Amino acid sequence: MQGLFITFEGPEGAGKTTILQKLAKELEEQQFNVVLTREPGGIQISEQIRKIILDPNHTTMDGRTEALLYAAARRQHLIEKVVPALERGAIVLCDRFIDSSLAYQGHARGIGIDEIFTINQFAIQDLMPDKTLYFDVDPEVGLKRIEKHKGREINRLDLEKLDFHYRVREGYKTLLHMFPDRIVEIDASASFETVYSHAKSLVEELIAKNLK
Amino acid sequence: MQGLFITFEGPEGAGKTTILQKLAKELEEQQFNVVLTREPGGIQISEQIRKIILDPNHTTMDGRTEALLYAAARRQHLIEKVVPALERGAIVLCDRFIDSSLAYQGHARGIGIDEIFTINQFAIQDLMPDKTLYFDVDPEVGLKRIEKHKGREINRLDLEKLDFHYRVREGYKTLLHMFPDRIVEIDASASFETVYSHAKSLVEELIAKNLK
Repeated sequence: MQGLFITFEGPEGAGKTTILQKLAKELEEQQFNVVLTREPGGIQISEQIRKIILDPNHTTMDGRTEALLYAAARRQHLIEKVVPALERGAIVLCDRFIDSSLAYQGHARGIGIDEIFTINQFAIQDLMPDKTLYFDVDPEVGLKRIEKHKGREINRLDLEKLDFHYRVREGYKTLLHMFPDRIVEIDASASFETVYSHAKSLVEELIAKNLK
Repeated sequence: MQGLFITFEGPEGAGKTTILQKLAKELEEQQFNVVLTREPGGIQISEQIRKIILDPNHTTMDGRTEALLYAAARRQHLIEKVVPALERGAIVLCDRFIDSSLAYQGHARGIGIDEIFTINQFAIQDLMPDKTLYFDVDPEVGLKRIEKHKGREINRLDLEKLDFHYRVREGYKTLLHMFPDRIVEIDASASFETVYSHAKSLVEELIAKNLK
């Protein structure tokens, strides 16, 4: 593959989506061939799979069913969108990828990181990201950022979720130890400009190393 | 688990569905608690997954996406229907299960039996069938039998070429060697009555051994 595959990970409210959009725009202005995507990425089959996962009526959905569906949607998005982009030499910036499944289903839901890794290896074969930027933020800070957008106070249900988000963060911390060469941690509790410039310099360094 | 989990496998047109229906009826008449099922088995989540798999518009569907979707549908059907039935001591007769994925996706589509087995192990954990009856028939004979039943809808898998169905059979033959204790071969080219009485005697033997 000629391109560069960079994934962006982190808990809710880490700000990665906003950063990704600004970064993609700047790289495009520098005449780079950039593909900004996120699963399911407009791929029809993956969109339909995602509908099944997110349907609020599906209260009986088992954690392993959910994990297999995410892996299926990931596979199709990879084959239809990511691989063709990498083959024509693009910089693919992907908002969440395999590490989300490892942190959320593997660690936070308790299925096990190794087991989730196995089915995702089946899905992506050897196509791991060249680099992963992990935006670390205290879940309480992250959720408060989200609340600001919604304009409501934190209630009991949000607090239950908070516990889940702490486990998600713990999952990401485990992944940092498992993949020290691939995953880079960014302190996302800082100001937007600080976080953005950290992310940008990491991506520019990668481009300089790999695409020049 | 107190019950008995028996799966029925074979290529299209082997006659297993007709045999299963007759067998379930006879066992019920003998006052056994029988659950006759097939994936997706009326489980809403699994039905919706199956719709995605079989949609003739999904011509871009990758073989691995398909395999992960089958494993997801299998998981949900197992958790919602098969496990509760086995827990209350029922005889569960299931039309197709893990071996279909191993023969169709693993062998015939060339993904590899071991790889398909891995994602299915994730889906079913250790819940393998107690016994599997494999109905063997030459694919050409099987497909001719199907053509007689013109009432049936043609789905995406029916459109595969004869060559594919020969590879499916080859896959099942490989499985017979991999799981000699679990899978029993039945010659399904014989008359309906002969095939039926062979299947029935095998199931009755299993019941005598396991449920008495």
